[in-house]
Amino acid sequence: MSWIDVTYLVRTGAADIASVAAALALEQSVEVPADVVRDDWVREHVMGRVAGIEPHDAGRFRVGIRLATATTGLEAAQAVNMLFGNSSLHHHVELVDADFPPDFVAGFAGPRFGIAGIRGLAGVHGRPLTCAALKPQGLPVERLAELAFTFAAAGIDVVKDDHGLADQPYSPFAARVAACCRALERAGRETGRKCLYAPSLVGPPRTLAKQARIARDEGAQMVLVAPALVGLPAFHELVQEVLDVPVLAHPAYGGAAGVAPPFLLGTLFRLLGADAVIFPNAGGRFAYSEQTCTDIATRSRRPWPGMRPMLPVPAGGMSVERAPDIVREYGDDTMLLVGGSLLAAGDRLAERTRAFVDAVAGTSPVRNGRPVSAAPAA
Amino acid sequence: MSWIDVTYLVRTGAADIASVAAALALEQSVEVPADVVRDDWVREHVMGRVAGIEPHDAGRFRVGIRLATATTGLEAAQAVNMLFGNSSLHHHVELVDADFPPDFVAGFAGPRFGIAGIRGLAGVHGRPLTCAALKPQGLPVERLAELAFTFAAAGIDVVKDDHGLADQPYSPFAARVAACCRALERAGRETGRKCLYAPSLVGPPRTLAKQARIARDEGAQMVLVAPALVGLPAFHELVQEVLDVPVLAHPAYGGAAGVAPPFLLGTLFRLLGADAVIFPNAGGRFAYSEQTCTDIATRSRRPWPGMRPMLPVPAGGMSVERAPDIVREYGDDTMLLVGGSLLAAGDRLAERTRAFVDAVAGTSPVRNGRPVSAAPAA
Repeated sequence: MSWIDVTYLVRTGAADIASVAAALALEQSVEVPADVVRDDWVREHVMGRVAGIEPHDAGRFRVGIRLATATTGLEAAQAVNMLFGNSSLHHHVELVDADFPPDFVAGFAGPRFGIAGIRGLAGVHGRPLTCAALKPQGLPVERLAELAFTFAAAGIDVVKDDHGLADQPYSPFAARVAACCRALERAGRETGRKCLYAPSLVGPPRTLAKQARIARDEGAQMVLVAPALVGLPAFHELVQEVLDVPVLAHPAYGGAAGVAPPFLLGTLFRLLGADAVIFPNAGGRFAYSEQTCTDIATRSRRPWPGMRPMLPVPAGGMSVERAPDIVREYGDDTMLLVGGSLLAAGDRLAERTRAFVDAVAGTSPVRNGRPVSAAPAA
Repeated sequence: MSWIDVTYLVRTGAADIASVAAALALEQSVEVPADVVRDDWVREHVMGRVAGIEPHDAGRFRVGIRLATATTGLEAAQAVNMLFGNSSLHHHVELVDADFPPDFVAGFAGPRFGIAGIRGLAGVHGRPLTCAALKPQGLPVERLAELAFTFAAAGIDVVKDDHGLADQPYSPFAARVAACCRALERAGRETGRKCLYAPSLVGPPRTLAKQARIARDEGAQMVLVAPALVGLPAFHELVQEVLDVPVLAHPAYGGAAGVAPPFLLGTLFRLLGADAVIFPNAGGRFAYSEQTCTDIATRSRRPWPGMRPMLPVPAGGMSVERAPDIVREYGDDTMLLVGGSLLAAGDRLAERTRAFVDAVAGTSPVRNGRPVSAAPAA
């Protein structure tokens, strides 16, 4: 008999928490009142149960619920359904964590490349990686390709599409991917170093598969996908069945309320096969706290039997000036993603990009002679 | 030049709302500061713009943003990305509505059966429909099929799987669907009336397609799918490319993204092809207000050029006793879903089910000689 230990934060009064927790255990398993479950086997093997209740902060309790692993069918969609299907509709409940048993985890491969795979492809060791974004959307294909060339020539390791780039008439997917791949090849010939291109795949499942084939045929060595946007099960299938390059996961539509970001981005995305995960860094234009960001990075890289480490990619409102601090905070096994802050340099884009690249390389804990890394040796 | 008029509720102070709204328009379009957009065409045809700001309630403003239709690529995943991709990560922003222009809507077929199609298949006219759920999960296939038979024989119009039923070992999908279809055929022969069975499809895209084929081959005349759980784009593709029966949409995982329920369940689910939509009714065990529920029902059925009406299915904590009130509230073009309240009757299940069926039929506005319907004549 195997159980998933799920943790929720529940907002309610002390007088009600016991009954609210009991209701939550039923809602996420049998979905009927306990006295309606008249079958002993169901009561013992299927019905969820409250494992613990403890005060968390003013007005909230930390509630542990044990859900039978068998209810998930060992599959992503149904697992999310059991963890948070109906309770996502409850404003007073937040899903914060789940401890999956080995028989559940065994059904998932996690990152297929992970940190080591991405480093190998990019040829970058001993320092954090750098990433820049092609934007704003609306620019024609040639302008985006030019931008890609400038970034690569200035020493960026990974150039990604803005996640807003899809298959719009002003920069159709196939033409864009071809042009950007050619631009990066040209940059590679001139600089003698590699820069990976991650086009953004977005659409329903068949479109994703089609875009993945185009990206592969053009030679793109990475892809960008937003798991919450395309659907966690569709993301998982895409990774398992279609993609043969590392996946950079984007948090779009990941939601601020409901599922705690560290669990969604740091644990679930990794479980489903993301090789790297973008998250809005503290101090940028999103409201993630430092603790949330640290937690995402920790979950991305912490030892997890059978799961490769996933590369954390702090982003959002990042500036060249902040790069050294961010490297000190996250350590070497990190990729720094900078966007609008580079583009604001206008005609001095190449210069500003080189400053960013140098800032990251120069302040790497390893390069400073102090090999400090937040990453465990997993 | 075509625009989508999107409405957000934004929590911030009066001193900041202008700049917060401007930032939101950029975040959901070009994703760079306005002064970085140096291309005139992009500024005029791609960059989002603030259309209006008005006070909503204490601490919140209603912000109208115009987003260029072209940025969506006329496709579900990218449309959601543009409406709420990054802003879903902002705690202070809620997506509440969008007014789609005709050139966008033309890319979507909406419900393929709708209210009239479901009525035709069920053979029910002039009164609301009734629906009961097979649960709790954990029961073996034969017990679920027995339950289906009892419901059908007692006069229920639609028997659906509990949304927690997936492909678990204790009631595998293929065996369950076959057994329930046979049970309903037998009930039909005995009663001379129809009862539709809606098995729950859940999983990654290829699994959904496989389950849909099994359901069709066994003769299931409806299916249950949770669009937010399988992913909105995967749901849309399933409806468009695979399914040839009406789709009953379940709200599971729908609360996890900061999208207002009336817009998500009433508008987006309908746009993407749901024929009927389950929602937690006010007064049940979920926290939806009466106004939210009325809004969902109104959006399901209101005239929308090119879109068939979708059947609203109030559910969640419903009791036989409340049925008359619910019929009065929602009118005829409604399906009442009752779950645990029937099962609580234990050995008197059939009797209690007949009481529910009679309550709905007997209190129908039409049957009472007062043809009141909340549904427009669309």
